[in-house]
Amino acid sequence: MLPYLSDHWGNPSSVYAFGGDTSKAIVQAREAIASLIGAHADEIVFTSCGTESSNTALMSGVSADPKRRHVIMSAVEHAANLSCGAAIESTGARVSYLPVDSDGLPCLDALEQAIEGETAMVSMMWANNETGVVFPMAEIGAICKEKGVLFHSDAVQAAGKVPIDVNEVGLDYLSLTGHKIYAPKGVGALYVRRGSPFRPLIVGGGQEKGRRGGTLNVASIVAFGEAARYVSDGLLDESTRLRGLRDKLELACVEDFGAQRNGHLEARLPNTSNLTFDGLESEALLLLLEKQGICASSGSACSTGSLEPSHVLSAMGLSRSQALGTVRVSLGRMTESADVDHFLTVLPAILERLKGAGPLGRS
Amino acid sequence: MLPYLSDHWGNPSSVYAFGGDTSKAIVQAREAIASLIGAHADEIVFTSCGTESSNTALMSGVSADPKRRHVIMSAVEHAANLSCGAAIESTGARVSYLPVDSDGLPCLDALEQAIEGETAMVSMMWANNETGVVFPMAEIGAICKEKGVLFHSDAVQAAGKVPIDVNEVGLDYLSLTGHKIYAPKGVGALYVRRGSPFRPLIVGGGQEKGRRGGTLNVASIVAFGEAARYVSDGLLDESTRLRGLRDKLELACVEDFGAQRNGHLEARLPNTSNLTFDGLESEALLLLLEKQGICASSGSACSTGSLEPSHVLSAMGLSRSQALGTVRVSLGRMTESADVDHFLTVLPAILERLKGAGPLGRS
Repeated sequence: MLPYLSDHWGNPSSVYAFGGDTSKAIVQAREAIASLIGAHADEIVFTSCGTESSNTALMSGVSADPKRRHVIMSAVEHAANLSCGAAIESTGARVSYLPVDSDGLPCLDALEQAIEGETAMVSMMWANNETGVVFPMAEIGAICKEKGVLFHSDAVQAAGKVPIDVNEVGLDYLSLTGHKIYAPKGVGALYVRRGSPFRPLIVGGGQEKGRRGGTLNVASIVAFGEAARYVSDGLLDESTRLRGLRDKLELACVEDFGAQRNGHLEARLPNTSNLTFDGLESEALLLLLEKQGICASSGSACSTGSLEPSHVLSAMGLSRSQALGTVRVSLGRMTESADVDHFLTVLPAILERLKGAGPLGRS
Repeated sequence: MLPYLSDHWGNPSSVYAFGGDTSKAIVQAREAIASLIGAHADEIVFTSCGTESSNTALMSGVSADPKRRHVIMSAVEHAANLSCGAAIESTGARVSYLPVDSDGLPCLDALEQAIEGETAMVSMMWANNETGVVFPMAEIGAICKEKGVLFHSDAVQAAGKVPIDVNEVGLDYLSLTGHKIYAPKGVGALYVRRGSPFRPLIVGGGQEKGRRGGTLNVASIVAFGEAARYVSDGLLDESTRLRGLRDKLELACVEDFGAQRNGHLEARLPNTSNLTFDGLESEALLLLLEKQGICASSGSACSTGSLEPSHVLSAMGLSRSQALGTVRVSLGRMTESADVDHFLTVLPAILERLKGAGPLGRS
C-alpha cells in the first residue's frame, strides 16, 4: 500500500493517467476481495469498515419493500449490528433477536418460526467475534431461500479464517473489514449479490457505481486486496496449524487450571478460545497477562469500558459471575508455538496471584 | 502516520496499553483538526470522507424536527451534497437550491426569502471546488442565526487555504476531508457544535461517543492531524505566495490567449483558477497538458466521465460551449514558480494545435 501513499496519489475517479494507475490497483483489489468469498468483482462495494458495510446491508434490506419491515438477527451479533437493529426499530420497523443455545448456536426451528410474511431479512454473523462459534450458514441460507427473505452475514470475524463462498450459502449481502485480515483499520467491503435490493448509505459523486459516495481510500483498499490474497494463501493449512496451537493452549487451561471452554467445540474458528476462569475478574487477568506481553480480551474492543457482562456469554446462559471471569484469546498468522508456551508458562503465577486475597482478585 | 501502520497497531477502543498509544495519537489529531477551524476537540467526529461528513450533517439537520423538513443549499454545491439533497427529497422532505450570480456568489436577499417556518437547515459550501469562489460565510451565518435555522458548511475545498473559524461564522456543522490538505484519501471529519442536533449515519460499537460506529482509521487520522498542523503553519504567507503564482498564470492566459476567468476575482481561494478557452474542447486540452506533465481538471473528479457541462458553470450563466471549454488549474504547497513557467511555456503550442482543424479541436 505504501506507494499509494506517496507516488501513486491520483484520484481513481479522475481522468489523469495517474488516476488510471490507482484505478487499476482498485480493480485488482476488488478482484482479490471477490475471490476470497467466491463473488464477482462487480458485487464488491468498498466501504470504510465492517460497521458501515453491515449498516448499509441492513438498511438496504429493511427499506426494500415498505410491506416488509421486519428483520431477524441473532442475539449474539456484534454490537454494531445490534445498534443498527435498535436504529431500525426507531424507524418503526421490527427486529427479532434469535436466541442461541449454550453452545452459542442458533436454533434453526426457531428461525423458521420467526420468519413471517413481513420479514424482509435475516442477518446472521458467520462466526462470533467473542467465542469463534461458526453458524450453520448453508442451513440458514436454505431456510432464507425457501422463505423468500433476504440474507445478510457479518463475516468480519470469519473471513480469512474459514473458507467463505457466498453462492454456496446463497447470501444477498456479506460484510467484511480489512483490519481483521491484516490490512489497516478504516477499510471494509460489502458484497451485494447482483440484483439484490440496494440503497446507498452514503450518497455522493457516483463512486462505486453510485453505491457509495466518497473518494476511494486507495492505499487501504490496495492493502485490503493484498491482505485478501495473503489470508487466502494456504488458508486450510494455516487453519490446521492454528487449531493445533489453540487446542494446546485451551486443553492446558481446562485440565491444569479448571477453565471452562465456551462455544461449540467443533463449529468454531480455529484461532479463538473463549475461557471462563470462574471466580476471577477477567479485567485483572488481562492486565497481568499484558504485563507479560500477552494481549487478550474480554468481550469486544468495541464495547470496552462497559462494566456489563458480555451479551454473547449471557445469551449462552453463563451467569454474570462466569461472564465477568471470561477471557478471549485469539491466535493469528504471527502466533508461534513459543507464544503459546509463553502463555502457559506465565499463567500459573498470574492465576495464583488472582486467587489470593489481593486487591485484584475477587477473593 | 507510518508507525501507526506497523508498530502502533492497537485498537484505540481496546484496553491494551498499546491501544492507549493509539488512543493518545487520536486525541492529538482531534485537537489539531479542532484547532484548524477554531473548534473544541469534543466537537470533532472522525469520518471516512467529506461526503460522509456532509451526509451526516444534512441528515442530522433534516431529521431534527419532524415539523421542519426543508433544506436550502446552493445550486453549486459539490455533487456529494446535491446527491444527498436528492436523497433527502426522496424521503418526502423539500430542498431548495439557491442560485448564484455570474460571479458564482449566492444572493443573500434570495436566501433570506427562501427561509420559511419549515426550514430546518441551510447548507452552503465555504469555497467552490471548481471556481474557488468563497461564499460570504459570516453574512450567511448571521442570516441563519436571525432566522433560527441550522447552518452547515462543506469546507472540504476551503480548509487549509483560507482561515476558518466556526464560531465567527456561527456554524452548527462543518465538513472536512483529509486528502484536500495532503493527508491520504479515506479520512474526513465533521464538526458538530455542542448542543446542535445530531443523528449518527453509521451506528455501531459506541466509538466517537456514539456519534460514529466503526473501528477508527488510526493511521489516516494521525496523518489528518499532522496535515492540519502542516496547512495551519504559515497559512497566510502561503496564501499570498499562491495568489501571486496563480495570478501570474491567469493573467497570461487572459491577456495572451484570450481566456476568460470565471468566479469573483476577489472572493475566491488563492490557489484556484477557472479558465474558459471558448471554442476549445477542455478534455482535449487536459490530455495535451498531461502529456507535458501538467494535471488540470474540468469539473470535479467525482463527476468525471460525465459529458454534461459543469453544473457550477451552468449556474453562473456560462453557455454549454463555454462550460465545455473550461479547465480548472489548482496550485498547492508543492507548486513552484518554475511550474507556472512550464505551464505558460507549453500552453501556446497546445492551444495552436487545438485551434487547428485537427481531430482534437472542435475546428
